[in-house]
Amino acid sequence: IMSKKGCCDSVGECFFDYYTSKILVIRSRKVGTLNRFTQALVIAYVIGYVCVLKKGYQDTDTVLSSVTTKVKGIALTNTTELGERIWDVADYIIPPQEDGSFFVLTNMIITPNQTQSKCAEVSHYGRHSVQTGRCVNYNDTVKTCEVLSWCPLEKIVEPPNPPLLADAENFTVLIKNNIRYPKFNFNKRNILPNINSSYLTQCVFSRKTDPDCPIFRLKDIVEEAEEDFQTMAVHGGVMGVQIRWDCDLDMPQSWCVPRYTFRRLDNKDPENNVAPGYNFRFAKYYKDSDGTETRTLIKGYGIRFDVLVFGQAGKFNIIPTLLNIGAGLALLGLVNVICDWIVLTFMTRKHHYKEQKYTYVDDFGLVSI
Amino acid sequence: IMSKKGCCDSVGECFFDYYTSKILVIRSRKVGTLNRFTQALVIAYVIGYVCVLKKGYQDTDTVLSSVTTKVKGIALTNTTELGERIWDVADYIIPPQEDGSFFVLTNMIITPNQTQSKCAEVSHYGRHSVQTGRCVNYNDTVKTCEVLSWCPLEKIVEPPNPPLLADAENFTVLIKNNIRYPKFNFNKRNILPNINSSYLTQCVFSRKTDPDCPIFRLKDIVEEAEEDFQTMAVHGGVMGVQIRWDCDLDMPQSWCVPRYTFRRLDNKDPENNVAPGYNFRFAKYYKDSDGTETRTLIKGYGIRFDVLVFGQAGKFNIIPTLLNIGAGLALLGLVNVICDWIVLTFMTRKHHYKEQKYTYVDDFGLVSI
Amino acid sequence: IMSKKGCCDSVGECFFDYYTSKILVIRSRKVGTLNRFTQALVIAYVIGYVCVLKKGYQDTDTVLSSVTTKVKGIALTNTTELGERIWDVADYIIPPQEDGSFFVLTNMIITPNQTQSKCAEVSHYGRHSVQTGRCVNYNDTVKTCEVLSWCPLEKIVEPPNPPLLADAENFTVLIKNNIRYPKFNFNKRNILPNINSSYLTQCVFSRKTDPDCPIFRLKDIVEEAEEDFQTMAVHGGVMGVQIRWDCDLDMPQSWCVPRYTFRRLDNKDPENNVAPGYNFRFAKYYKDSDGTETRTLIKGYGIRFDVLVFGQAGKFNIIPTLLNIGAGLALLGLVNVICDWIVLTFMTRKHHYKEQKYTYVDDFGLVSI
Repeated sequence: IMSKKGCCDSVGECFFDYYTSKILVIRSRKVGTLNRFTQALVIAYVIGYVCVLKKGYQDTDTVLSSVTTKVKGIALTNTTELGERIWDVADYIIPPQEDGSFFVLTNMIITPNQTQSKCAEVSHYGRHSVQTGRCVNYNDTVKTCEVLSWCPLEKIVEPPNPPLLADAENFTVLIKNNIRYPKFNFNKRNILPNINSSYLTQCVFSRKTDPDCPIFRLKDIVEEAEEDFQTMAVHGGVMGVQIRWDCDLDMPQSWCVPRYTFRRLDNKDPENNVAPGYNFRFAKYYKDSDGTETRTLIKGYGIRFDVLVFGQAGKFNIIPTLLNIGAGLALLGLVNVICDWIVLTFMTRKHHYKEQKYTYVDDFGLVSI
Repeated sequence: IMSKKGCCDSVGECFFDYYTSKILVIRSRKVGTLNRFTQALVIAYVIGYVCVLKKGYQDTDTVLSSVTTKVKGIALTNTTELGERIWDVADYIIPPQEDGSFFVLTNMIITPNQTQSKCAEVSHYGRHSVQTGRCVNYNDTVKTCEVLSWCPLEKIVEPPNPPLLADAENFTVLIKNNIRYPKFNFNKRNILPNINSSYLTQCVFSRKTDPDCPIFRLKDIVEEAEEDFQTMAVHGGVMGVQIRWDCDLDMPQSWCVPRYTFRRLDNKDPENNVAPGYNFRFAKYYKDSDGTETRTLIKGYGIRFDVLVFGQAGKFNIIPTLLNIGAGLALLGLVNVICDWIVLTFMTRKHHYKEQKYTYVDDFGLVSI
Repeated sequence: IMSKKGCCDSVGECFFDYYTSKILVIRSRKVGTLNRFTQALVIAYVIGYVCVLKKGYQDTDTVLSSVTTKVKGIALTNTTELGERIWDVADYIIPPQEDGSFFVLTNMIITPNQTQSKCAEVSHYGRHSVQTGRCVNYNDTVKTCEVLSWCPLEKIVEPPNPPLLADAENFTVLIKNNIRYPKFNFNKRNILPNINSSYLTQCVFSRKTDPDCPIFRLKDIVEEAEEDFQTMAVHGGVMGVQIRWDCDLDMPQSWCVPRYTFRRLDNKDPENNVAPGYNFRFAKYYKDSDGTETRTLIKGYGIRFDVLVFGQAGKFNIIPTLLNIGAGLALLGLVNVICDWIVLTFMTRKHHYKEQKYTYVDDFGLVSI
């Protein structure tokens, strides 16, 4: 007892003692093999799956992106109202510039020479204009309420089929995408360093032959999403141009390249849907020589292309690494618990092992077993 | 010594030995209970809190979203300048289409028939135009500097109150939202499969009666954010339409539904604020018969609605699961340390236990205690 | 044996036994010191690095943001076509309002009085219009194909240098940014509570003197990105206004402030680049007295400013905390393994220790060593 006390007085001494648990070594192939095997499993999981496959040693960041687009192409239409007419970028891109999205006009219902005046409303259309209370001839047979509105009213008709700007399928769009992973201060463009300007002037994206070309033919985009351009062009729709940037920044930067995929974002089937397709109304305003304002109302159908940029970058970081190693070690501890249980429950000589492993003591001293 | 050496020569033998620590079993209710109790606590935390409540077994992904909006409604204004006038979508949505955001014109200051010319500047307004150097009559009494500008200059007045397009409160907007969780390749729309087209043609969102209807009355949006539409419409503002997609993808997909909340994004109180409300200037350009360009300048006040889509999806994944289990096991180990400390410090027969637990050895052999 | 059996019959008894491993205490300064030292290292890592530096005890969320911008300024141009002309916000911001991004027109190529008609195409320009098949005089010397298009065609020339709206460098922009961390229900604006309205009316951002002022001079933005405004204005470009919100929500909210940085997003060097700079075409449409539609085509060069808001908020959360502590404890366990290995491999009296630490038993009983 003396020396013991002595120890606990002089803390320093105690402090530098080394405490290690006493071990019982059971020389049994059966359990030994089992033990090593389960340990191997756990280690294989931690090393192989967590570290190698899932890159558990990496810290991750999500992408920060900026997109500019430039559409090229020209379309010829020939209608009774307008006659032969050329449509260029300034005509069919509305608004002329957007951030990360662009709209291509493919079809329209035009109502020219509207003025603020009074006219006979189209049936069942009343709630969309203000009634004067008078009743006037809509045509020779029908009388309807008179409304105050932009007259003549827009006809309620289906959009032309085939679409007016059927040529739009051959338009091309140049998509410039600049990304940044703030946490790792890493920037990159979708125009890769290894492709030169002369190539860019004439290339068109093709998954097989030109996977790195940032210039896309509208028809290709739609068809990769397994849609038919001409059908989609009639009522319009929304296409997603998905650019995925998954980068392992422990690897050479040249391995970090964008992957393009295309997907239709709007719901085309008529079930549980409302206002299918994509269209909106806009107007061009004019003033007559006498100063009265007239406008041309255009119900524009078209395809909106949303450029959706996403992805995750990973880079070695000590914290997630040790987190996973630590968890792995803890699981290794679990292995022992299981083996102990097996040894002391199922093995023929379990009592024999128990005696060696356990020493029983109660409040009154050792317990002989 | 021989056999020992022998072992370490033939590694194979050693390798398949099973090492298990020798255990001292203390048959004391007090400490035993304490031990089990703390263990129970840790296990309860790991199972109950981490796994069940916080879904620690799930890998997470953030949402990728695309939004289209379509506003409906018509407004009647009656002013001295314009007389009776109807405003429809083409007039009050600027620009006619945007991505994930839309602006509704509710009030304006109109300055018609501006031409590039010279006129007397409005006092204290000089820095916004270029002075010619001459001094001219602003009105009978006041003389001001002459400026080169779009003349006549816009009057510096407060916007009309009540707002011109007071009717805007009854406009409705259809919000279509398509989301994707790339990591889990999961897509969904805010128009849920269980609601049919006929319902969609006439429903209006209401938190109580129609929580799934994607058509919103502008007034309702503003009022849910505890603002008054008419007041807000005078100087304009910015409203956030928040769509939250929190999805547990281990559950049926039908449980993954959007939750709508509304919030005012701009700062309305005059303290530490500048240019309160939301307004911008735009112009309609005309050409007279003689070819000179005139424009109608409109300072448009209105409410911009930003659709903010966010949320997190979780799905079972082995890595976070084992991370949490591993950490839990490590904490279980901590329990023993604590119990040991208690046993060997506070219990009456601590020396008695110490003797059994510890064997002391120094560089010169066993130490008798 | 009896009592043993007895134990396992009455589970309750067994259950409340306390199991603690038997410990061999080696009183050796060398290994003791080593042991404590490595332990200290691990603890220092967990406490110091993980918890203090990397805030391993925090749960994180990414920012949800809404941005409005308001540009101010006026420019004077003096060209042969247009004569002296004033440009104000309504003229040079296209479209008049956007979400989180704004475009400032700085340079342009104007093609007035275009009508839908036939004219001689400019060489190498054919693919951009539709040929009638006839061959006409382009000028006295050259004959080219006739095309159906908006005539006269836009001249293929370099944009003016110096840029038309050189004054744009003195324009200022007010950027209002409202952010939200949904997980923590935390909102904040970039107009901080401590700055008052009178200051906001006249301040201009300056990293040194006015780091909190949300009003930016366009020239300053460009120059902070180490670009020259006038050079950039000629062909246009894309600037990123990065607003970083890194917030430690365990600290006072007033510490959570935005950090502004500026970066050029487009690629200016001619190598591996296509369509350098930033420009787009838009048109103003007019109607003559005789009703024929004419337009003024403008190829607008300018700088698009993308406001990129990002950042991460952290707040104490029990799960990551215990994850890291658990992992730390597991690593502490590793320390013992290492020390054991050293003791039993390198120390002079290793056999002496082994004898004490290990007890060997095989299927036939104790093994004397």
